[in-house]
Amino acid sequence: MQSTTLEKQLGFLREIDRLKTVVRQSPLLDQSRKENSAEHSWHLAMYALLLNEYACGPVNTNRVIQMLLLHDVVEIDVGDFPIHGQPSSELQAELESRAAARLFGLLPQQQGNELLTLWQEFECAETEDAKFAKALDRFQPLLANVFTGGGTWTENGVSLEQVFSRYGPVIKRGAPRLWNLCEQWVTQHFARQASGMPRKAS
Amino acid sequence: MQSTTLEKQLGFLREIDRLKTVVRQSPLLDQSRKENSAEHSWHLAMYALLLNEYACGPVNTNRVIQMLLLHDVVEIDVGDFPIHGQPSSELQAELESRAAARLFGLLPQQQGNELLTLWQEFECAETEDAKFAKALDRFQPLLANVFTGGGTWTENGVSLEQVFSRYGPVIKRGAPRLWNLCEQWVTQHFARQASGMPRKAS
Repeated sequence: MQSTTLEKQLGFLREIDRLKTVVRQSPLLDQSRKENSAEHSWHLAMYALLLNEYACGPVNTNRVIQMLLLHDVVEIDVGDFPIHGQPSSELQAELESRAAARLFGLLPQQQGNELLTLWQEFECAETEDAKFAKALDRFQPLLANVFTGGGTWTENGVSLEQVFSRYGPVIKRGAPRLWNLCEQWVTQHFARQASGMPRKAS
Repeated sequence: MQSTTLEKQLGFLREIDRLKTVVRQSPLLDQSRKENSAEHSWHLAMYALLLNEYACGPVNTNRVIQMLLLHDVVEIDVGDFPIHGQPSSELQAELESRAAARLFGLLPQQQGNELLTLWQEFECAETEDAKFAKALDRFQPLLANVFTGGGTWTENGVSLEQVFSRYGPVIKRGAPRLWNLCEQWVTQHFARQASGMPRKAS
């Protein structure tokens, strides 16, 4: 039996409930637990709503919000690839593409294609909107680490240089003024660590 | 010392991390735990992105998404008022207004006022955008209950008539075609309960 348009849409909305169970590396700021990818996506959308003035170029805030709402749904099939792990980026891209095809394929064709195209735009990171969205996707977990006195950096023995190389280029490209602030906070964080006075950023 | 614009924005974004710790009554669809208000807001924004064709009138999907992203932040101060509890709605409105003033007051003035105005529009539920947003905010937990074979209805001993009166008017007003579906599913659910054959909707 053919599904109706609404049945397909609700099938997709039901399936993506599972994003709430995908656990990321980043902690909540109260450190009570790790963040999941659904609430991370919500938080990023709020970042986009408020910080558009820091984008490297003119951006369409609503498109950036939409991109960030759906950027992680592929993790339902493939899980979260941590920034401090070293997976094959080619394999990751292949798995995520398959997941995007399956998930957006649950939707009515035209709507599914629109969302798939938006997801691909995010992944390619060539448009101003996508560059800004990618920058926020790095900026938010960086802040989580700074605000919790180390977070995943401490857990993974990550150095100042590694933070600069893993977060820097993406944030600088999409939101240069936000990266200026990051440089300052990250430098202060590691200076404190080195001096044996770990302290949360105030 | 005066905070800069960016410091105020980050102060707000840091504060609303706490929405991830506000636990709602509704279960995740896999029933592993209750949903929190941050991931609920993400899910609702996805509902708005996909279901705008079912709105009662012409809606601006991006405004509806923005409304839903921020509609629950007041719960950081006042918690979630469950639909099946019976709090004083006057007291609830007063507490939520104060919370909105405090939270959006963390932002630079113009930006804070814009968000406060959007939140108030949602609360008043007079515009087409707000009516549709409110309808989705009722529709999503109703589906969670149907898809988990009862959810909060079973826990709270809620009857068919109570479901109809608590969810019906708001969903019907903002998204009448979605309410038609709800009526059907809710009726089937309670018929199964009555016949002693509880079963999850497929």
